[in-house]
Amino acid sequence: MAVYTQVSAEAASVLLVRYDLGRLTAMKGIAEGVENSNFLIETDRSRFILTLYESRTNPADLPYFHDLLAHLHTKGCRVPRFIEDREGRWLQDVAGRKACLIEFLSGVSVSEPHPLVAYNVGKALGAMHRAQGDFTGTRPNPLGHSDWRPLFEKCDPVESEKLLPGLTARIADECDYLDQNWPDNLPTAAVHADLFPDNVLILDDEVTGLIDFYFACTDARAYDLAVTHTAWSFSADGGQYSPEIGNAIIDGYLDRIELDASEKAALPILARGACLRFLLTRLYDWINTPAGAMVSRKDPLAFLRRLDHYIAHGLIT
Amino acid sequence: MAVYTQVSAEAASVLLVRYDLGRLTAMKGIAEGVENSNFLIETDRSRFILTLYESRTNPADLPYFHDLLAHLHTKGCRVPRFIEDREGRWLQDVAGRKACLIEFLSGVSVSEPHPLVAYNVGKALGAMHRAQGDFTGTRPNPLGHSDWRPLFEKCDPVESEKLLPGLTARIADECDYLDQNWPDNLPTAAVHADLFPDNVLILDDEVTGLIDFYFACTDARAYDLAVTHTAWSFSADGGQYSPEIGNAIIDGYLDRIELDASEKAALPILARGACLRFLLTRLYDWINTPAGAMVSRKDPLAFLRRLDHYIAHGLIT
Repeated sequence: MAVYTQVSAEAASVLLVRYDLGRLTAMKGIAEGVENSNFLIETDRSRFILTLYESRTNPADLPYFHDLLAHLHTKGCRVPRFIEDREGRWLQDVAGRKACLIEFLSGVSVSEPHPLVAYNVGKALGAMHRAQGDFTGTRPNPLGHSDWRPLFEKCDPVESEKLLPGLTARIADECDYLDQNWPDNLPTAAVHADLFPDNVLILDDEVTGLIDFYFACTDARAYDLAVTHTAWSFSADGGQYSPEIGNAIIDGYLDRIELDASEKAALPILARGACLRFLLTRLYDWINTPAGAMVSRKDPLAFLRRLDHYIAHGLIT
Repeated sequence: MAVYTQVSAEAASVLLVRYDLGRLTAMKGIAEGVENSNFLIETDRSRFILTLYESRTNPADLPYFHDLLAHLHTKGCRVPRFIEDREGRWLQDVAGRKACLIEFLSGVSVSEPHPLVAYNVGKALGAMHRAQGDFTGTRPNPLGHSDWRPLFEKCDPVESEKLLPGLTARIADECDYLDQNWPDNLPTAAVHADLFPDNVLILDDEVTGLIDFYFACTDARAYDLAVTHTAWSFSADGGQYSPEIGNAIIDGYLDRIELDASEKAALPILARGACLRFLLTRLYDWINTPAGAMVSRKDPLAFLRRLDHYIAHGLIT
């Protein structure tokens, strides 16, 4: 959430010469999205986001993200397109990084969603899944079910126990449970896989954009719904569940797409998996990020609390 | 150069209710200026910068900055105004911090200035000094000549010598020299005191804004010119001086305001002082900022090299 690579105004002006977008009138480094460098670029005609891909994004994945967003846009979903230059190129080299100029979308990320917003978010997610039709791109989920145990094994147990005594046994048990019960034959789609409130733009309670598709991948579409449910329906610390928000997410989703019986039955375990995924990535970052580093550490236990909720109450209340 | 305090869209919307500026349509945390938290705020009518003041800015200084910018704006200088709400209040409380909504100015910071830009920057600085007329606000320079030796004494000499053997003796000698030769009776003004390229917005070679006045204070106006000369006329590492840029800064300044004989004579020593000021603040930060912290460390020796240049060649070449 910072600017890792600086881009001079001169370099941005040189880049804009490749496009028909007007001349540069303002440029601000912005704190946005995953660990890439982002700039708000303004010309005398419009505004754009310039993203430079840092180490966490594999450039080989960019064509998948481009194709998915182009497809979704064609189908009427509100997602930011990668912009092509005069020669049809959307992938550029800027300041030693792979870089893309991306459509700017209005809207703000809400921190305290109310049920109408949550319903519209569920609807936008359902519409996104429904819109896929003939989209043929695939990308394995690098943080899917089979990756959780290996990730857990990379987390120093001494540090994990310092965070919460008994945490390693809890996680090991959950890995076992999910290995025994994970549903492998659910309908798949290109899923967002990270649809937290900061990745949704809202204006007048309507969704104006789903953004930050850099975790998008091929996985069970019901897992995407479970991730979104987990991401929206709890207080930040995971301690308080809002059934109004949770139900609105699901109702909005079902307004656009039907789940089959196997998907509905799997939702509670998918939600447990979603909790474990974020618990583990946060735990890994917690242990391996020095205090005071450029990336602020997020509390892993906020997802242990969500996990406790789903174990006790399931998904639909 | 990061966002230290998060502001929710809800909190920004609540703030905007105090103003007649339209409703919030976009909001991005931006990497801008000194160590405050900054957001680009967009409404359906215009754009603004929302600044939250972190520990490095003393709220007691804010009225001085407000009054100075309001005065300069009235006199036609291109500086960002603090915006008043319906009740005439420009200082707000947001997310536990003192905060101001500030005019957005177009333009970009150039990294490789050419002489015409430098001339216009000098001119804008001269116009800023000339415009002061009846401005009566005062603020002692917290990083002025009398503060350099105390700051030097706070820099661990072991760490200083690690950076460059002999550095402590060099700095001690320079403190002695400046103590013996510093001119104390030059005409003063409200000076910017930090007019580096990233604090000047440029469009079509013209200055569209002088920004980031949070080091502004009462000091010798010729010292401000010396700081600006030091800030613009060298390669980033301080190893290469550009006489075309340096002369253009001075020529542009003199196009708007005359220096008296004592000021002209003092310029070389003022430039040496400017170098020592940035050498010392960078050295202090270098020693006291952990590697990998949110603030990237800047090379102190870039200002030792500039100092070497001024000692060997003076200011006007």
